[in-house]
Order: sequence, then structure tokens, then C-alpha cells
Amino acid sequence: MAEAAHSSVDLADRAKAGADRSGYQPPSLPDGVVYAHDAGEVADLLRLATAHRVPVVPRGAGTGLAAGSTARAGEVVLDVSRMNAILRIDPEEQLAVVQPGVLNAELNTAAGEYGLFYAPDPASTAICSIGGNIATNAGGMRCAKYGVTREAVLALRVILADGRELRTGRETIKGVSGYDLNALMIGSEGTLGIVVEATLRLRPLPVQTATVAAFFPNVEQAARAASAVVASRIQPSMMELMDGQTLEAVDAALGTDYRSRGASFLLVQTDGHGAFLEQDVVMDAVAPFGTCEKAVDDEQAAALVRARREAIPSLEKLGRVSIGDIGVPRGRLAEVVSGLEEISARTGVRIFTVAHASDGNLHPMIVMDPEDSVTEGPPKVALGEMFRLAKSLGGTLTGEHGIGLLKRDWLEEELGGVSLEVMHTIRAALDPLGILNPGKAI
Amino acid sequence: MAEAAHSSVDLADRAKAGADRSGYQPPSLPDGVVYAHDAGEVADLLRLATAHRVPVVPRGAGTGLAAGSTARAGEVVLDVSRMNAILRIDPEEQLAVVQPGVLNAELNTAAGEYGLFYAPDPASTAICSIGGNIATNAGGMRCAKYGVTREAVLALRVILADGRELRTGRETIKGVSGYDLNALMIGSEGTLGIVVEATLRLRPLPVQTATVAAFFPNVEQAARAASAVVASRIQPSMMELMDGQTLEAVDAALGTDYRSRGASFLLVQTDGHGAFLEQDVVMDAVAPFGTCEKAVDDEQAAALVRARREAIPSLEKLGRVSIGDIGVPRGRLAEVVSGLEEISARTGVRIFTVAHASDGNLHPMIVMDPEDSVTEGPPKVALGEMFRLAKSLGGTLTGEHGIGLLKRDWLEEELGGVSLEVMHTIRAALDPLGILNPGKAI
Repeated sequence: MAEAAHSSVDLADRAKAGADRSGYQPPSLPDGVVYAHDAGEVADLLRLATAHRVPVVPRGAGTGLAAGSTARAGEVVLDVSRMNAILRIDPEEQLAVVQPGVLNAELNTAAGEYGLFYAPDPASTAICSIGGNIATNAGGMRCAKYGVTREAVLALRVILADGRELRTGRETIKGVSGYDLNALMIGSEGTLGIVVEATLRLRPLPVQTATVAAFFPNVEQAARAASAVVASRIQPSMMELMDGQTLEAVDAALGTDYRSRGASFLLVQTDGHGAFLEQDVVMDAVAPFGTCEKAVDDEQAAALVRARREAIPSLEKLGRVSIGDIGVPRGRLAEVVSGLEEISARTGVRIFTVAHASDGNLHPMIVMDPEDSVTEGPPKVALGEMFRLAKSLGGTLTGEHGIGLLKRDWLEEELGGVSLEVMHTIRAALDPLGILNPGKAI
Repeated sequence: MAEAAHSSVDLADRAKAGADRSGYQPPSLPDGVVYAHDAGEVADLLRLATAHRVPVVPRGAGTGLAAGSTARAGEVVLDVSRMNAILRIDPEEQLAVVQPGVLNAELNTAAGEYGLFYAPDPASTAICSIGGNIATNAGGMRCAKYGVTREAVLALRVILADGRELRTGRETIKGVSGYDLNALMIGSEGTLGIVVEATLRLRPLPVQTATVAAFFPNVEQAARAASAVVASRIQPSMMELMDGQTLEAVDAALGTDYRSRGASFLLVQTDGHGAFLEQDVVMDAVAPFGTCEKAVDDEQAAALVRARREAIPSLEKLGRVSIGDIGVPRGRLAEVVSGLEEISARTGVRIFTVAHASDGNLHPMIVMDPEDSVTEGPPKVALGEMFRLAKSLGGTLTGEHGIGLLKRDWLEEELGGVSLEVMHTIRAALDPLGILNPGKAI
């Protein structure tokens, strides 16, 4: 077990370790926090927890958006943020071996020195950790072309509930020996094991990137333009949508004037040797729906990407933000944004929409007064209606943030009873005492 | 239960249903064959099998290469090859919904009418079924760029051992609600459930494809050239390697004269808007190792691809073929082909090598006399040495064919005891009576 300096029962540490970025307020504080420094300490803690049947809540950088690593009385938080070493970068095989506490942006900085990048790029890249990315199967802006976390993780070292060490996956690109435990762990939100090391696939930085910025009279037209890009059969490396109110918030925060150019915005990037040929295809697809232009240089392109990345922080200046995460088939984008406007009008809840339009993943953001909560009242009603809207269009409750505590109410409606039973069967088989992140994810 | 016409206890039918393309000879015949025509019949059979504890061996087109769907006395074969309808192709969402008995090439023909394709393309595309592709997480020649079966399957309908129907995945590109049961089913070789319907991701046919053919004085140089292409940081849509003896066999079968041009061959294709720019990068990467040229037209390119696709049938004219399937990190290709030559020299077993060089997946093919078997004698020794060679280079026993019966002896050595225990725990949780494809895969 960790020595005294490796754990805390201090009130402030417990309060910090019990919360995340979801806006959810846990009803009580966890009993304590253990800061692990290596795999052996994780295994030691889990053996102790098993012996004493103590629930353990794994925690990385604490940037979760679904209350997947919040903790309460009776639970101990296992914080792996100090396990933050990049152990190896292999430029020939284009892979990295890292500890779970490494931040997403840190890995990209290190990979960049070899002309490589790590594809999953949540908006929170600067502050979110690889372990948390794996726990939620995180996505981001360039995943439509390069895949989400599942496609980027080659192998894992995982400590199971009873302290045994499991190795999943392999360093080769392909491999089918045995079941895909790698994929089973990814997105399991800390309920099946604790990741202590990850072997990640890196990719060569694109030789060139081309950017299109387009503005539209309303968000439905932007959504139609995005569907037209999908139909044009090129694969953008990024296609981000923002509605007019979000543009206003970004303008206020950054001092820009995007809103004056239209009531919705689409940012489309293509990359690789064919980037500029593909850019022409994008322009042709988007033009019928609004005004569009090519970014003149890298600096202008970077400013546009920054505007998108700053959407959440900009909205946080307006009130308490709860970030939705629904996904729909790509051709249904215009319907879903219309539906969101209608939900906002009906419930009186303010909903701002940004979307990864290339894969149909929307982040409708509820902005509330500081004393409001998404676990009750109109915000909760609006969250439920968002989910039912997505479901009615053949979609899902969560594209990349996970279920955590906040979305469990609608999970069975999406998955069906048999699926949930099978998941609980697997969970019980791997963690028979139920000590890993109880009550979360499923 | 299926009516009489839907099943057979005829000797010839049982013999056919008990064998696959692996070269493995089952010691006895299965007790009977049930031909399912819809999901209800699959569920009925599994309920009966559960009630009477009868082992069931699922079977698609019978083209497996690892004895994953071979059957013996005491077992009943569940043949789903008659469930072969393409239920829907949605060109807007770029997906298809199919039954498991649809052949890979049939789906591609149907998708092609919409300008789309299904990416996984085993060499056996003309004769292998989607259900079997899913059971083995099949790959193929264009998977390095477009992903293997796991990346192409959006959703599944699966009948569990007790007859319950499980739905996994979703129609959206992204989604993280609950565990990734979709990936768990893919590659599970019929041991966790029977796929009765699959929703598959299609992709737009490339606007153009460029082809490079290169010949080398020996297979190590070809392997070095392939690693140089990987290092050049473009992603070929196909990069196939053949050694000199395989070229001889193909020449004999097709009347071509590839062997006269070199003692090994590399076929590299690039596609998309940047195809011809990438082709120049490939030429530069390959040139130091041998002689290379650009295919002058589609016809010449198609002939080269055909030579690769005909490798296995050509070798089958020389004797009984057992197809290896090892994977190694991409930078180790030259070492592994040298090692294979050494194993051949030491064991006296003839080994012909073709490889999906872009993802480090090799198919070393043992060609034996008709009375020999890979389950004993020098061929088995050679198989074991191939695996240990791959393992010593950080590789795997099987890149895309599965474990079946033939590779179980080396599985624990690759995965480790904890991994195998966890897999057996999951298998027992989903199939507590052990009626699904017993003795296979893990």
C-alpha cells in the first residue's frame, strides 16, 4: 500500500478528487484519495480494496463530462495523474508507450518532434489525460478521418479488480488471437480495470492541410452543407459546425466578429497529398448553402480552429454549462439541429450547438444559472428530450463522453434489456465484488 | 425447430459440413446439419441445444483457414449460408444491412452500383461470407488504409447461446453507450453468439488508383522496400509482397512471367485525390532496393492484383497448402522473411511467403504432400517455429485468420495466463453450458 505521502484524507483533496467537469455535484465527499505512482501501487491498492470490499473510483485528470469519475462517501479515489511518463516513442513503428496520466496535448507535443501525431483530440486536449481518453473512448475533431481512441490503442496493461495484471492487444497493427479485450476495456469507464500503461498508434503529420470557412443564414443550412460534404465522398480531416449563439459567445470571449458573417459556421479541413484538390470538392459541396472561402494561410486556419476550440470556455463565461453528446446518422444533421431549437423553445432551456459534423456527433450545450443542475428540473427534461430526439433519428445518447452517472437513466432505452444484462454479466465476471467505480457507466 | 427439409443427417452433408479450407481433417463426422433460414430458426435451434446440452458449431461459407468451424461426432453444425440476403444499402449513410451468408464479393458488387465498397477483402472474397469475416475479424489487402472487419462493422444482431437476441453497436459512426460488445463479438469465432444480421460501413470508391510494381533480387530487399514505404509516411491502399517461389507458382498457373523479372515482388497501390503524388513518393522509397515501374493503365494494374489474388490457388496445384498468418511490427519484415527461409531450410518444410506488407501481416504457406498434415510431424514443427519467430520480433500468431483448432497450442504463450483466464471467464459468463463451438478459439 502507498505510504502516507501517497494518499490524503484532507477535506480539500477529497472535495477536489470527488468532482469532475460535468457540473454534477456529488452528495458527499469520498473517504480519501490514493495517488498511485506505478502499476505496483495500483495493484496493491486493488488487492487491499478487494480484501476489505472498498469501492474504488479511478481518476485521471478529472476532466470527465458525464460524472464518470465523481466519488462520494464510502468510496476511495485512485488518482493516477502522477503516472505521467511518456515511456517510449518509436518513430519507425509509429507508436508511443505512455502511462495513463500523460496529457493528450503533451503526447502530441512529444510525437510532433518525430513528425507524428496522436489522432484523438478532444477539445480538452490541453488538460485531459490519455487514461481518461481510454476510459471514455474519447473522440475529437479529427476522428472522422483518423478514428477514435479505440482505433488508436494498440495494447494496454490493466490492473483488474483483484489486483491481477492483464495485458490486452499487441504492438502489431493487426492481430486476432483471442477476444478483443483491448476494445472491451476502451470506453468501459473504469468499471472493468485500471489502465496503467498504453501502447498507442501514432500517425505521420499530414504533408499539408487545406481549410474552408463557410457561413450560413441559419444552422439548418450549415447542417445541410455538412451532409453535402459527406455525400461528395471526400473524407475531411475536420468538419466542425457552430450555431449563431455559440459564435456570439466566442466573439465576446475572443474579440472576433464571426457572428457578423452568418448565423452559423462550418469549418472544413482536408489534408494529405490531395488536400487542395479535395478542398475544391468541399467548396463545390458547400457553396449552394451559404458563403464560403478558403483560408489564405496557416495562421488564418489556426485562428478558425481556435474559435472552435474556445467554444466551451466561451460559453462557461455565460453560466453553468452541461455538455450534451448525442450522435445521429450523418444525413440527419439538419433534422437534429431543428429538433434541438424546438426543445430549447419548448423547455425554456438555453441550448447552444457545436458538432463534429463529419461523424454526426453533436454537443448541444445547456447553459444554466449557477444554482441550476442537469440532474433536475427543466435542464434534466431537456437532456432527456435531446436523447429521445437522437434516438428517434436512429442515433445515440453519447458519441464520445460516456455514460458516467448522468446518462444512466436513458441507457436501457437505447441499448435494450438483453444488451444491458450481458454487460452486467461481463462486469460481474471481471469484478465480482463490484468494487470498481460502482454505479457508473452501465 | 427447423422442419425436415431444413436439416440433414446424410453422410455427404455431414462430411461437407464438418470440414473447412484449413487442411485439418476432423476425426469424425458431426451428428447432423441444420440449415437456418432466419434469425428465429437460429434462436429455436440454440434453445433446443441449450435444453439438451448439444454442442453447436456455427458455419458460414466453410472457407475458414484455422479449423474454426470444423465439427465432429457429438456436435451439430448450424449452417447459416442460406441466410444470404442483402437487406438494405443506404448510399446516403454509406452502410449496408446484410444477413451473415452474403458473400464478401456479392456485397461489393451490390455496393459498387452505388459507387461504394466494403473495405475488408480477404483473398477469398469470391467465396467467403460476411458472417465468417465477422467471426474471424477478417482483413485483406486494402485493410492497412481502410481498416479490418472490426472497423467496418457498425452493428450486429446476435443470437446468444440460450436463444436470446442481443443487439450490439449502432448505425452512427461514433457511440460509447455501454461496453463495446460489437468488438467483443467480432473475432470471437462463433464462441459467444451467432451473428444473424450485420450493419456494415461502406466507403466511397476511390476517385483514382495508382499502381507501382517492383521486383527485387531477393525477398529481404522486397521487405526492406516495404518498410521504406511505411517510413515514407504515405498510407498505401495496398502493399503486397510475394517471394520468388510463389511467383513461379503463379506464373505456372496463369502463364505469366513475373519470376523472370526478379526473385521477389512488391505491389503498391495508392488511391484518392492524391494518388499520383503518393505514387511518386512510393517510387522514390522503393527504387533503392530494386527495379520499379508504374502500371500504365487499369488493365495492367488489375493483372498485377490478380497475380497476388491467385497466389493461394496457384500453390494448391503444387500440394496440400496450410496457410500461416503471423503478424510482426512493420519494421521487422526483412527479419521475419529471413527467419522463415531459415525455418524452411532447417525443417525441410517448403514455405512460400506472401504478405500484406503495409500492416506486417504475413501468410507463410506450407505446401505438403497430400497425405501430410499440419497437426503433426515437420509441418507442425514449422508452424510452431513460425509463431515463435513472430513472437521473438514482437508479433502475433494470427493477423486475420483466427485461432480455430489449429493454433490453440501456442495461444497461452502469446497471450499469457491472465488474459486467457479472463477470456474463459467471459466465455463462461455468456455460454455457461459451453455449447457454442466448444474447443475452438481460446
